[in-house]
Amino acid sequence: MPFDRYHIIESTLREGEQFSTATFTTAQKLEIAGLLDAFGVEMIEMTSPCASPQSEADIRAVVGAGLRARILTHIRCHKDDARRALDTGVHGLDIVIGTSAPLMQHSHGKSIREIIDLAAEVIAFVREQAPDIILRFSTEDTFRSRESDLLRVYLAVADLGLVDRLGVADTVGVALPQQVYAMVSQLVRLTGLDVEFHGHNDSGCAIANACAALDAGATHVDTTVLGIGERNGITPLGGLIARLYTLDRSYVAKYNLTLLPRIDRLVADLCRIDIPFSNYITGPSAFIHKAGIHAKAVLADPATYEILQPADFGLTREVAIGHRLTGWNAIRERSRALGLSLDDATLKAITQDVKRRADVHPLNLDEIDGLLRAAAS
Amino acid sequence: MPFDRYHIIESTLREGEQFSTATFTTAQKLEIAGLLDAFGVEMIEMTSPCASPQSEADIRAVVGAGLRARILTHIRCHKDDARRALDTGVHGLDIVIGTSAPLMQHSHGKSIREIIDLAAEVIAFVREQAPDIILRFSTEDTFRSRESDLLRVYLAVADLGLVDRLGVADTVGVALPQQVYAMVSQLVRLTGLDVEFHGHNDSGCAIANACAALDAGATHVDTTVLGIGERNGITPLGGLIARLYTLDRSYVAKYNLTLLPRIDRLVADLCRIDIPFSNYITGPSAFIHKAGIHAKAVLADPATYEILQPADFGLTREVAIGHRLTGWNAIRERSRALGLSLDDATLKAITQDVKRRADVHPLNLDEIDGLLRAAAS
Repeated sequence: MPFDRYHIIESTLREGEQFSTATFTTAQKLEIAGLLDAFGVEMIEMTSPCASPQSEADIRAVVGAGLRARILTHIRCHKDDARRALDTGVHGLDIVIGTSAPLMQHSHGKSIREIIDLAAEVIAFVREQAPDIILRFSTEDTFRSRESDLLRVYLAVADLGLVDRLGVADTVGVALPQQVYAMVSQLVRLTGLDVEFHGHNDSGCAIANACAALDAGATHVDTTVLGIGERNGITPLGGLIARLYTLDRSYVAKYNLTLLPRIDRLVADLCRIDIPFSNYITGPSAFIHKAGIHAKAVLADPATYEILQPADFGLTREVAIGHRLTGWNAIRERSRALGLSLDDATLKAITQDVKRRADVHPLNLDEIDGLLRAAAS
Repeated sequence: MPFDRYHIIESTLREGEQFSTATFTTAQKLEIAGLLDAFGVEMIEMTSPCASPQSEADIRAVVGAGLRARILTHIRCHKDDARRALDTGVHGLDIVIGTSAPLMQHSHGKSIREIIDLAAEVIAFVREQAPDIILRFSTEDTFRSRESDLLRVYLAVADLGLVDRLGVADTVGVALPQQVYAMVSQLVRLTGLDVEFHGHNDSGCAIANACAALDAGATHVDTTVLGIGERNGITPLGGLIARLYTLDRSYVAKYNLTLLPRIDRLVADLCRIDIPFSNYITGPSAFIHKAGIHAKAVLADPATYEILQPADFGLTREVAIGHRLTGWNAIRERSRALGLSLDDATLKAITQDVKRRADVHPLNLDEIDGLLRAAAS
């Protein structure tokens, strides 16, 4: 099964830093990395040391923390960048270069032939300096690149026999799952190397695309906490966990799932953003059941309308009952919880009363309890 | 092309009402429906008249508003519910019944044979009462139902020759795009009827699944504004638009896209929630470019890192420059915008200065302008 042997490359400290409101101090980076390590992510990617003086110092600080996770840094395909990165003692280098027409023209101005030569030069240099370092080569904007260009580049790089992993990147968030599947399975088949997927979420497919990549044999998926990154971000850590859990809970058993709420909360606070109402697992309404039909069934068996078990994440479900969509089964359940014994006709009448009142404004639990107690007295 | 002939069933006034904080007044429902109609959605789905007295009155109010969009209501597969719905003068009925094992046990307690008989009875009743009403039959929790059960139910219903549309529903948010594609294409092939997709987002595939459904020949997709609904919601209107726009802008040309920010804002305000930082198109950072490499390329040609054009939605892009990831191309652009003529060496030195300062705290535009002006004077 392809979902049994994947690794998460957690990029909150690289891609996440590219989110508009993200600026992490050294202490904050250490706290985030420590929590991600405790959660169990296999790799943590950090901003290039060339970005700023603190960026360089922070790599040293996180490497020095002695985490179980391997620490990577993400650099342009430049010998100078590679040299500075190697100097930090980082465990792995993620080299990237644009291969789509717009990026070749406006990012670096090189042709495919020049990209191949440059990649060979930089990769050979890194391997010579650091025979054991984890080394990845990725194209950028893979899904707007010409397929023939991609294959020329990837096959030339694979032929060097010097990299551990190839990366494919949906840099502008345009790929469809079937395109990701086709590209990844082709690379796995042709090169036999590990393959990493990095996907932006501009058109809402970052999670589906990550899942398609794993299904096709990818070994590594990039995530960030809450999905923060350039523009509206990438595959969120919690969203990937939700997707794999719903396929088979055993696929995420290696992670410490109960830490997820704390991780999401920490990064939201540091970025001064709210956890989205619609967030996977840790969003404020992820385990709230409202409509009467849902409430009735969830009270009988949560699996009716719940594909994730909140307790696995240290969370609890809530059945909302004080609104116009409520049903008498939920009202009966509340009556029982209060130790009242009301007959069905009375409970149905109270339910209609709650609906009428809730048409004016939703009722809180005290108000509903008051109606139930009044009927019982 | 399957994407040329789809219709949106906008369900903010039904599924959306099942979101934890959603309670719309009649006036608010009319405002939401009016804006959605101006945007151009083809159908608007409303809460069952059986939910509460106001729910029934609101259907009459929205039908009475004389919108171009057809008004539908969503009911259980019950003759009584159908009778009350028909009485409102609504343009269409969306009938639903659970077919998965957990829902058959805990929602209605009926067998597949009983479901088939009940559906035939209710559908015949509706058609007799209202020969011209738009009539849909949907299973609930389709993707946890037995495929043989689904086919028995759908083929029996299609054979009646009385419904306009069949619905498939990923009620717990568990389906994968390839499963949706297989189920929808099978229904299209076997019945020739219109097919509607309704997908929850618990595991992050609601947009990808809606797109897979259309690709397979579905004619209708359910959305809500911002994706609000039970738990963490369903396919968001703006997310579906983003997905289809990035495939081909012509697929969404029939909608009034510049209304999207106003629609998202309205529903967020009425539900007292923030538009998520990561929201499609209208999220606060959807068109912010931060890393130096991105900024450089976007300044040369926005298509380098933008697959959606903000102006098409009445929005603008922003290139953030006062942070540690900034680059000298963005600083040069700002210098030019101020009418200063600084040489490249000076601009590169200022960029390094900005990075050092931003390592302490991000700089605002005034601070950057001050550094540039000081260097020019």
